[in-house]
This record gives sequence, C-alpha cells and structure tokens, in this order.
Amino acid sequence: MRTSIATVCLSGSLEEKMYACAKAGFDGIEIFEQDLLVSQMSPEEVKALAARLGLSLDLFQPFRDFEGVDEATLSANLRRAEAKFKLMARLGMDLILLCSSVATANINDDEVFVRQIRQLAELAAKYRIRIAYEALAWGKFVNTYQHSWKIVQQVDRENVGICIDSFHILSRGDDPAQIAQIPGEKIFFVQLADAPVLSMDVLSWSRHYRAFPGQGGFALEQFLGYLADSGYAGIISLEIFNDVFRQSNVQRTAVDALRSLLWLQSQTAALRAAQGKNSALNLRSLPGGQQALGFDFTEIRTEDPEPVARLLTQLGFTFRGQHRRKPVQLFSSQDARIVLNSQRSAGVNAEVSGFGVRVPSADQATARAQELLAPRVPRLHLNNEEDLPGFSAPDDTEVFFSAVDGAWDQEFGGDNLDPEPGVEGAVTGIDHINLAQPWQSFDESVLFYTSVLNLKALPGTEVPSPMGLVRSQVLTTADSEVRLALNIVPAGLASLLDRQHEYPEHIAVKTENIIALARRAVQAGMEFLHIPANYYEDLAARFDLDPQLLAELQELNLLYDRDERGEFLHFYTQRVGNMFIEVVERRNSYDGYGAPNAPIRLAAQFERNRWSSH
Amino acid sequence: MRTSIATVCLSGSLEEKMYACAKAGFDGIEIFEQDLLVSQMSPEEVKALAARLGLSLDLFQPFRDFEGVDEATLSANLRRAEAKFKLMARLGMDLILLCSSVATANINDDEVFVRQIRQLAELAAKYRIRIAYEALAWGKFVNTYQHSWKIVQQVDRENVGICIDSFHILSRGDDPAQIAQIPGEKIFFVQLADAPVLSMDVLSWSRHYRAFPGQGGFALEQFLGYLADSGYAGIISLEIFNDVFRQSNVQRTAVDALRSLLWLQSQTAALRAAQGKNSALNLRSLPGGQQALGFDFTEIRTEDPEPVARLLTQLGFTFRGQHRRKPVQLFSSQDARIVLNSQRSAGVNAEVSGFGVRVPSADQATARAQELLAPRVPRLHLNNEEDLPGFSAPDDTEVFFSAVDGAWDQEFGGDNLDPEPGVEGAVTGIDHINLAQPWQSFDESVLFYTSVLNLKALPGTEVPSPMGLVRSQVLTTADSEVRLALNIVPAGLASLLDRQHEYPEHIAVKTENIIALARRAVQAGMEFLHIPANYYEDLAARFDLDPQLLAELQELNLLYDRDERGEFLHFYTQRVGNMFIEVVERRNSYDGYGAPNAPIRLAAQFERNRWSSH
Repeated sequence: MRTSIATVCLSGSLEEKMYACAKAGFDGIEIFEQDLLVSQMSPEEVKALAARLGLSLDLFQPFRDFEGVDEATLSANLRRAEAKFKLMARLGMDLILLCSSVATANINDDEVFVRQIRQLAELAAKYRIRIAYEALAWGKFVNTYQHSWKIVQQVDRENVGICIDSFHILSRGDDPAQIAQIPGEKIFFVQLADAPVLSMDVLSWSRHYRAFPGQGGFALEQFLGYLADSGYAGIISLEIFNDVFRQSNVQRTAVDALRSLLWLQSQTAALRAAQGKNSALNLRSLPGGQQALGFDFTEIRTEDPEPVARLLTQLGFTFRGQHRRKPVQLFSSQDARIVLNSQRSAGVNAEVSGFGVRVPSADQATARAQELLAPRVPRLHLNNEEDLPGFSAPDDTEVFFSAVDGAWDQEFGGDNLDPEPGVEGAVTGIDHINLAQPWQSFDESVLFYTSVLNLKALPGTEVPSPMGLVRSQVLTTADSEVRLALNIVPAGLASLLDRQHEYPEHIAVKTENIIALARRAVQAGMEFLHIPANYYEDLAARFDLDPQLLAELQELNLLYDRDERGEFLHFYTQRVGNMFIEVVERRNSYDGYGAPNAPIRLAAQFERNRWSSH
Repeated sequence: MRTSIATVCLSGSLEEKMYACAKAGFDGIEIFEQDLLVSQMSPEEVKALAARLGLSLDLFQPFRDFEGVDEATLSANLRRAEAKFKLMARLGMDLILLCSSVATANINDDEVFVRQIRQLAELAAKYRIRIAYEALAWGKFVNTYQHSWKIVQQVDRENVGICIDSFHILSRGDDPAQIAQIPGEKIFFVQLADAPVLSMDVLSWSRHYRAFPGQGGFALEQFLGYLADSGYAGIISLEIFNDVFRQSNVQRTAVDALRSLLWLQSQTAALRAAQGKNSALNLRSLPGGQQALGFDFTEIRTEDPEPVARLLTQLGFTFRGQHRRKPVQLFSSQDARIVLNSQRSAGVNAEVSGFGVRVPSADQATARAQELLAPRVPRLHLNNEEDLPGFSAPDDTEVFFSAVDGAWDQEFGGDNLDPEPGVEGAVTGIDHINLAQPWQSFDESVLFYTSVLNLKALPGTEVPSPMGLVRSQVLTTADSEVRLALNIVPAGLASLLDRQHEYPEHIAVKTENIIALARRAVQAGMEFLHIPANYYEDLAARFDLDPQLLAELQELNLLYDRDERGEFLHFYTQRVGNMFIEVVERRNSYDGYGAPNAPIRLAAQFERNRWSSH
C-alpha cells in the first residue's frame, strides 16, 4: 500500500516537513497550499527536492468554494483555478482536491454543481490535471460522500473522481459501507484520520482534535476494508489537524504517523484474512501480534541505589546480587523482579526507566517492533549474557522482550538466587506500572504501546489534583497480566512556584495479604504516605464497612475501594526521587485501580512535597 | 453584595486556597467536599482558620444522587447525608447543595422526589441545616430551574430552597427571565459562571471550559438583573471548573476571580440604573468606565537601546532627547511616541514593556484600576516630574494613564521637541500593540484589559504557524483608537530544539503612504522581513490587482489585504530582541489586521530564526 501524508499535519517549514516524511519512510506527501505559500522555496525547488528525497507529490490541496455560485463568481473562480493549475504544472503535480463549497455558494442545485464542475474539468484537462471532489462534513449543500459521488457520476468526466475522507464520513455518524459500491478507479484519493470520541461541533472537532489511526475511536480497519472492497488500489494518506502535532517535533510526528498506517494495514489485513478476502490495496502485514504473558522485570535508574534498596527491603524484597559486569543490582520477591541500574545515571534520582515483558517469541516481538519503527536500545551483551532485545518508547521508557522470566538472572549469580520461603503477605508480582507522559507525546505513546506490545486502551479518565487535572489512560492485555497506566502531567505545574514539579511515576506490586505486608513494613521502619482522617470518615459514610477493618485501614494508611466485582486495598510508599511504590491487594475479581483514591494520593504527595522542599 | 467562591476553582491545598481567597478580598467560600477530603486539616481546624481569616463558610457541596431511588438506596443515602450533616456541624456550616440526581435515580416521579427530599429536610432540620436544591443541566430527570423550583415549592419546607447556577441554565439555552418570579428568600444560593461559546456536550463544557464572568459569552449582567428583580439579597458565588485555573497560581486566580465579580456588579448596576431599578443585592459600582482616547506612548525595555533606535530612525522617527534623570530615551514621529527604557534592563534584549493611554480623567481611571485590584507600578516622580499612574497587567505589561498626550515630554527637554516638518509617508501614530500571552494568563489578561481599560473583546481567531496554532484576540475601544491584540504562544514551542522559542511582540505604527515610507526606509538601509514569491503569485490569483501595484508590493516586501470596506497594506521589520515593528496603511474604512497574512509573517520569522540562530 502506498502511503502519504498532508504537510499540514506537521510542524516546521515545508522543507523540514519533506525531510521528516522521507526519513520516516512515507512514499509521498500532499502539498497543503498554505505550506507552499509561506515557503521561501520556489515550486521548482519543491519539485526537485521531492525528487531527490524520493517523495511523490500526490495531491495539491485544498481548492475551496468553487461550485454553486453566480456567473461572475464562477469566472473569478475559474481564473483562480487556472493560476493553481499553472502552479501545479511547475510542481509536476496532476491531482487537486476540490472541497464542496462552504462559504460563498448560494445556489443549491445539483445541476449547477455538475455544470460548473464540468467547466473546471475542461480547464483542468488542458493542464492534464485530475480533480478529486470531496464532501466536507460541514459543506453547505454537499456534505455526504453519497452526494459527492452522485455529482461525480453526473459530471461524467474522465478527470473527475471522488476523494474519500474518513473524518468527514465517520464524524457525522454516516455509514461507510456504500464505499464498497464505488468503482475503485473513480476513487481518486483517500485521506484517513482518526479522532477521539467527543461530542462537539464537527468543525472544531476536525480542526483541532483529529488523531492518527489507532489514537482515536473510529473503526478504521472496517473503513479501509470497504475501500479494499471497492477495488481501490491507490494511495492511502493521512490528513490530521491536531493542535499538539502542529507544535511537536516534526521528525517524531512523522514516524508516529507512518507507524499508525503500518499498524492499521496489518489490522485490516488480519480482518480481511479472517473474512477470506483479498484486496488490490496490497496491505502489508506485521509479524504476529502476540499477547504479552506478564512482566519479566522492572528497571529503576538511579545514581544512588540505597534509598530504593531500603524501600524494597522494607517491603520484603531480597537482594539477589550485583551484575557481574555492570553497576546493576537485582531485588526480587517471588515474581516481582526489580533491577536498580546505575549506568548513565549521573544526577538521576530514581526513575522508572524500563520494563521487560515475557512473550511467546522474543524474535517475533522484536521483528514487529522494528517494522513499527521502534528505535532499538543499544546494549552490549558480552560473554554469553542474555541478549534482551529492547526498544525506546516515546516517553523514553525502555521496553524489553524475553521468552522466559528472569532468563538473565544468572548474570547476578550466586546462592542468593534460591527461591525464598513463602511468607504471608509477600509481594507476589508486579500488578501495573504507571508512567508519566509529557502532553506532547501522549497520543504517540498510546499508539506505541498498543501496537508494539499489542495492548488494548481502556477509556481514559481524569483525576483532580492540587496541581490540575491529571489525564490517565490504562492499557492492558486481554487477561490483565500486563497493565500500564499512562498519565499526562498538567503543563502548568511549572508555574507553581516552590514546587518539585515532576509528576512521579510508580510501580504497583501485588500481594495476597496487604495488612500483613503493611504491618511488617511498618516494623521494618517504613513510613507510608499519610492519608488524612477526613478520608476515613468519608469511607465510613460511603461504605458499610466492618469497624475493625476501617480502624485497621486508618491505622495503616491503607486506601479502599469496592465495586460489584470485588474489593481493592492499597497503599503508597513515600516518594524516592521521582518514583514511589504502590502495594495492592485485589479481592475477588476487582479489576480497577482505585480511581476514587487517586486524588487523595495526589493531594497527599503535594502536601508532602511542600513541607519537604524547604 | 457579598462575594464567595467555590474552592474547586483554585489550585493548591485547601489551606492555600483559603489564604488566597481571604487575601484577594472574598467574603466567603464554598467548601467543595473533595478539597476537605484530601486535606490534612480537621474540620475543626478549617472552621478556626476560616474564622481567623474572616471568611464565612457559605456552602458545603455537592451532595449528589439522593432523590428518585428505591427504599433501600434511600436509607443508604439518608445515612450518607447524616454523616455529612455531622461533618457540617463540626465545620459550623448550615447550608448544603443538593444536586438533582444523575447516576443512580431510577424513578421518574415528582411525587417521589418531593417525598424523599422532605425526608432529607426533616433529618437536616435536626442539625439546623438548610438545603439548596440545584437542577444540573445534565440531571437525569430534573434539569431545568423551573422544574427544581416546582419541586422546592411542593416540598414546602422552611429549610429547603433553590440554588441558581448560571451555567446550568444558560448552557442549555434556557431563558433565565423567570428567575425574577421566584421569591428572593427561597433562593438559598447563587453560583455564577461564564463560558466561551462552544458547541460541545454540556458535561465536558462544564467540567473544563467554564470561565469567570467577563471571560466568556454569557449575558451575565442580565442574569444578575433577574436575580435582583427576585428580591434576592444573599451571596453571589463563583463556581468555575476550568482546566487552566486549576493549574495556575492560586493567589493570582483568586484576584482574577474577585475582579470578575467587581466588574460584573458594576456592569449590572449601570444596566439597572439605566432601567431605573433598585435592588436588595446592593451592587457595588466602579468609578466610571471612560473610553480611552488614544495611545499616549509605547515603552520598550532594552539593555542596549541602539538597535531599536536604529530601526526607529530608519522608519523616520526623530530622537527627542534623553530623560533628565533616568536612562530613558524618547523617539517620536508625529503622534507616535516610543520610549526606550534601560532601567532594570540587565539581560533584556528589547521587549514591549508598557504603554500609556490618554483618558478624560487620569484620576478616575486610576481609581477604577485600583478598585479592580490592579497592582500599582511603583515609580518615583521627583522635582515636578509628571506623575503618570501605572498598573501591571497579568502579562506584566505596564499600563499608564494620562489626560494629555506627552504631558511628560518636557522631562526630555531641549529644542528637539519642536514639531517635525510634514513628510510624505511619515509615521503618524500608533495603530495597535500586539502582546504575547502565556496560556496560563490569557483569560485573566482579557478580563484585565476589558475591565480596567474598558475595551471590548472581538471574536478570537487562530493563526496557523510552523510552531503551531497561535490564538489571537483583539480588544478595542468603540472608535478603534486604542487597539490591543493578545496572542497565545503555543506551549509546545519549547520542545522544538534549536529554536528561539519566545513569541515576539510588536508595535504597529500607521502611515498614510506606506510605499513612500518603505522606499525611504530601504534607502536608510533597512532590511524588511522577506516575503516569499509564492505569496505574490497567490495574491494575483485571489485579487484582480493592478500589475504595477503588485510589482511594487513584491519589490518592497509589502503584504496586502482587502475586504468590502477597504484595503490594508503593511510590512514587518526584522526582529530586534523579542520585538519588531509593523507599519500599516489603512485605505478607506478597512478595520481588520490583515489576518490572512499573519501565517506568512510567522513562517518568515520562523525561517529567519533558523538561519540566524546558528
């Protein structure tokens, strides 16, 4: 499948956009007219640069407000069009996007649209230019693809076809199924955009909140399937207006964009294979998406491992040894393996820097990650050390694959590797990992983890805090064995003076008896994050709790939640550097994260920072 | 009028919020329950702190999902309510907000609502607590104030009244006029919120985008008028859920909030005086809002005045002298006076630091600014120097008032003050000033300038740039003699590496012959911002321009716009430090700012930065 992207998706100058698209691996680009207009490059230079970079110039866009006008306006419009056709000739381009009229049209008559578009087609033919007619969702008279297709049929000219844009169709809630009935050769261009499910006016939604496929809520696999059914064999392009992408690093956004098309092709190919259908679109498949089986380990980078080591020991973790070659220590408690890494850690005061997941085939997971343009983590593996393939996520977290848990633990050798005796209330494994995201890379991270790790994104939530609303998004495997929570840091934090403004990340470990564990930790000298008395009074008002349990919760600073599936008890350690540990006990089938308690935690950490930062 | 504010509007801990509200000058606060829940302060401490700060605790809120439920749920709800009543007793509070049911109600029957609320009222009476019943715009069964008022009437209990919230009424497009018919003593509480005109689902709109009065599009003067007509004499409170306020400096937001109520009272009082109506609300008036008559001067702060002085000289400005006591220089050209100030300028490379406006009475303008809590600029005035009263805007721009243009210019003394000879294409005055705004203080700035300077906000626009969308808002006097443009800087700029990321501010000066002016400036060695050739080709396609004019525009790097009222020609100087100068010529009655050209300028500046920053 040939891939393309509209230059309006990206930040920077036209030149920078072109370099970024070529480097990411796009086959071509759409020239968004304004990007050319503001460019110091002449059309001839743009043509030459595209040729050198190996980018095709697929679509010149948009040409607006042409049809449905009086004769005087029509003449002016034809004059305007001819200037653009001449410009396209200099660019070496042959396809222009004609959007259905919005502003100046005042004649609502299909016959007039057909006659005027025919005049445009005849003029275009002189310049060997083809026209792709698109129904904008907010078009004044033409706003559905069925209507634009009807007009294209009536225009009945070889150089006039339809442009299909997923946003303009799905944002209105229109059924895309009839796309399959349009002859593929009359579909001149296809633009894809995803979007989060919002209910706002379609124009604002379109202009600010579109997203790359896989970052929103549209069923684009199905949509692309209908295009394949039509026999369409052309270019699939991205046209995404997004306030964040427009101010983010152009190279990263271009990679994110192409990743979304690779992922979408593969998802669509799988769907069609299941339906026993072929397609002229030549959809590229990725190496199989395996379900991750569980966390292998979590890694903490820190210049001084002692404070984290103390925390882990208080929680019952055992020191398993020092790596035979590197300044790396291993602690574990049953299936929870935590690695403290002091390589390249100058000035780093404890952060969650990576994690490993167990997968059926590490080679296959690696091949998939590479095809999804994930950047490889460069690590040396000497003297038979385990070669764990690793990749950098957009938030700089390092993700490793292995087929066997702790396959690498012999590198920490020695007697300490014997299994520990069973203890009531031991940590038994890692429940989830909570990673802070800069707002610029949130959507990129969601797509990275869902595509590379094959996770599913649950609906997002928002948590109030003294520093603003924290947006939170959980990604999990179907069986919940691997759970990630991505949190967006409120950007205004930096303006709150005298505050440590990084949002801390955390590792949540699980136990089957949190009360026993908490008591032992207290005896070992651990101080928990202090939970206010007001919280327990409210708990008593909300739930009919056993008074002894309530007293125990308050005594131990434990938090509590309950739903129809079960109960959830958890507590937080004090912060060390930029991270902390959460301990959770899930009773029965509770599957959440204690969301009602998150504001309590955030406020307590905020208070704590205030008093400790002076 | 007694003023109050809900703690949920502000960032920080409950304690910080209380200090900020007291310092700003609020009479009381609403306790948003979650803020208490997450607080380490006991209810008794909150009560004592409020007493010490002189804040009344006006409303405990919200109590949700009470009525319209089955008997078992009702018992649980009454138990939950009693716990809150006991808590309120400890806080010394007597008024609770009851929101109409959203989630758990499953009986749609007014008689059931009435019976159940009566039960709540009887329980509340034991604790001497009053209930204010509010219809949420998204209430499941009760979602209009007419409906909640009907229920309150049927409940018919002394301790049950209605809560009126402007957002829940105006966001639905409901007519607030019938509020005037409700007996004032049965309105137990009033919450005001403004909101920008957006069309999105009401819940998202409410939770993220509310704004303080004067920052949105609701007609709140009229709304408050209906309340006054009802005989209401109680508290007017602010309940604003806004993503930005929640992560901004708490003290500044509290001042901004109170300013909005002071402004709204005064606007409402003026409206009612015009209608010949009194009110029990005791609305406070501000000293008269005068129309600013024009710009007196603009001030540029810079460590090294030479580069700016060179720019001004090239544009035909004359050096008028050095201030007799301070490192301040005056340049002028007819009514355009520009002051270069090197006081407190270490490291400052040219920024627009302030401006003066001429007003009928500087004393009255000063009194108004002070009552609107504008912070005074501390300036010394020795030996009969003109005492220009000045105030700091939220964006740190200093705003000065004077009754006479250049009343202070004798301080720059000497022969240079003679009027210059008339020159064809001289700069004749200041057209507008363009100020960059951090996104955290944009709404605050809009309210500050509209209320303190009595300007009107025009509809906002968005301008695409290589660094993201720039949001722009013009504020003007009715006669356009004073025009400000506020621009929000895209926050992601900092992430674009190797870029100078401040958004430059500018002063636009006007002339009656821009072509003559530009030619002289070029002869004087000025380099303009270079406008790409592609722009002029597009101009030719869009407008039927005289070829000689087009050639002249391109030769001189002039930009052009036209609308039904007239024409606009303008150019930009190169940037000096963090500012530049724009020169504009308005032909006939053109009243805009050349908005279609703004992207050209931003892209050209972006290119320029790239090549000059290496």
